[in-house]
Amino acid sequence: MKDIAERPLPTYDDVVAAHERIAPHIKRTPVLTSQYLNDLTGAELFFKCENFQPPGAFKVRGACNAVFGLSEEEAKHGVATHSSGNHALSLSYAAMRRGIPCTVVMPRTAPQAKKDAVIYYGGKIIECEPSTSSREETFAKVQEETGADFVHPYNDPRVIAGQGTCSRELNEQVEGLDAVIAPIGGGGMISGTCLTMSTIAPDVAIYAAEPEQADDAYRSFKAGHIIADDAPVTIADGLKVPLKENTWHFVSQFVTDIYTASEQEIIDAMKMTWYRLKIVMEASCAPPLAVILKNPETFRGKRVGVIVTGGNVDLDKLPWIK
Amino acid sequence: MKDIAERPLPTYDDVVAAHERIAPHIKRTPVLTSQYLNDLTGAELFFKCENFQPPGAFKVRGACNAVFGLSEEEAKHGVATHSSGNHALSLSYAAMRRGIPCTVVMPRTAPQAKKDAVIYYGGKIIECEPSTSSREETFAKVQEETGADFVHPYNDPRVIAGQGTCSRELNEQVEGLDAVIAPIGGGGMISGTCLTMSTIAPDVAIYAAEPEQADDAYRSFKAGHIIADDAPVTIADGLKVPLKENTWHFVSQFVTDIYTASEQEIIDAMKMTWYRLKIVMEASCAPPLAVILKNPETFRGKRVGVIVTGGNVDLDKLPWIK
Repeated sequence: MKDIAERPLPTYDDVVAAHERIAPHIKRTPVLTSQYLNDLTGAELFFKCENFQPPGAFKVRGACNAVFGLSEEEAKHGVATHSSGNHALSLSYAAMRRGIPCTVVMPRTAPQAKKDAVIYYGGKIIECEPSTSSREETFAKVQEETGADFVHPYNDPRVIAGQGTCSRELNEQVEGLDAVIAPIGGGGMISGTCLTMSTIAPDVAIYAAEPEQADDAYRSFKAGHIIADDAPVTIADGLKVPLKENTWHFVSQFVTDIYTASEQEIIDAMKMTWYRLKIVMEASCAPPLAVILKNPETFRGKRVGVIVTGGNVDLDKLPWIK
Repeated sequence: MKDIAERPLPTYDDVVAAHERIAPHIKRTPVLTSQYLNDLTGAELFFKCENFQPPGAFKVRGACNAVFGLSEEEAKHGVATHSSGNHALSLSYAAMRRGIPCTVVMPRTAPQAKKDAVIYYGGKIIECEPSTSSREETFAKVQEETGADFVHPYNDPRVIAGQGTCSRELNEQVEGLDAVIAPIGGGGMISGTCLTMSTIAPDVAIYAAEPEQADDAYRSFKAGHIIADDAPVTIADGLKVPLKENTWHFVSQFVTDIYTASEQEIIDAMKMTWYRLKIVMEASCAPPLAVILKNPETFRGKRVGVIVTGGNVDLDKLPWIK
């Protein structure tokens, strides 16, 4: 088992290799459009629907790349991670497809639906207290006991290379893109997008969208160094985590700009997407449309790829229904 | 302007002509799958997502075929229909695309969202009382005043031919289908499906799914003649209308069987589809999955196309949130 620091930064060759490796396990997700949203924004928007992936999120790409890139010897010990969200589901799914064990350290306060999904895919949950110290302590114990390969949710170079396959597909599906925009949390999707587009379509602008209430990537980008927030509160719960060294490498080098959206703007954009595209997507996917609506001058007249990152929503608790 | 009785029943050649005619105005909608739903049903399900069509429903196919098949002379007078649902939106959309007037007679009690959508597409609404007599009287006046071409929501042969383009695409997108299933209301989609599949894939079984509480097609099918219900009450509000002579022609000749589902089964299947496929679809689309779950012996081991007919839902009033 290797530390992340021992793994070199991924190159575009790693993205190509990842794409071949994960193809049997992921979907080539469709790209949807809405004339209504185009008329409203003055842009041509192309929504890449990663919410349709098997575990409901783009994170299956990076997770499958890590799992299926292990040697037989490495794979025997299984994989492990800490996550209360889509990475936990995705790594469990990938491990199930390979037939190896997967252990996920989750805070005991994580939503039951996410725990159920991990178990559905055959993952083993080890609960910790909802604090960084408890998580680290618990995770260290898991790794020591199992010898499992640690797959970090976004800072792992194998994960970044896997996420880079998404914009590789998008670039094949939509001709003449001017820009791509994705939400930013830890920066795994944005880093993969940077890696791919800077190689195959370097003229395409790359934008990141973030909740105002968890704007650590925005502030990092403006400051020129990583700023990490302590426990930000936002409805976009997939976007609370901070950048790390590997994702910062790509964000700081290749991102054109980062914009933020308020909680209400995120909810409005989420509901509008459900109405107009007829898709179920998480609040964490809504900042891109929210910032396109908010900054029309940046996007007007442009062909813009919008990455819809996931669809694991609690349908009993929708943010616009009080 | 012609009466429906003057128009001959459509043939598969009409479907092919319709497909070419409407191609610039509709989407070739994607087919989605879910391993979870396949595991649950023991079948391989292929969901044809007509909820992604521009006005959010398959009815755009038939409406565009009628509108774009008019001669210049006929088109000058515009089109008209009576509908409180997706046909009203779709005909308005089609007329807007051709740049001709569209008048829709709607009960004054129709949902404001549907009225707004008709107006968004440039349609003109004439309100009537929510009774058949008021509707017929109002509609006759509209036709007399405008000379508009009447496009019936489902009994019109041009509409049936247009709906037949959906299963033509499905048959290209999915190899080796054993069955196709769609909801049945007036029977426009099922008739188009029968027309197409009986010509290009006659071994494919065609099933219709209907709410128990609006089971007039089911009872017609068993009785061997049309039975029309008076104002059935069901959450699947697109499926309340009765069969008419042209749709009965296809249903009675080509449908393999009709199954029904209770209101709760419809709601459960609707919610399950939202969760698993990550799509927004109407309650009227849910009977097919409900009856597949209820009659596993019919579908197990089969490759089944499922037509998802529309996605125009009031997101503030979801049936599983009380």
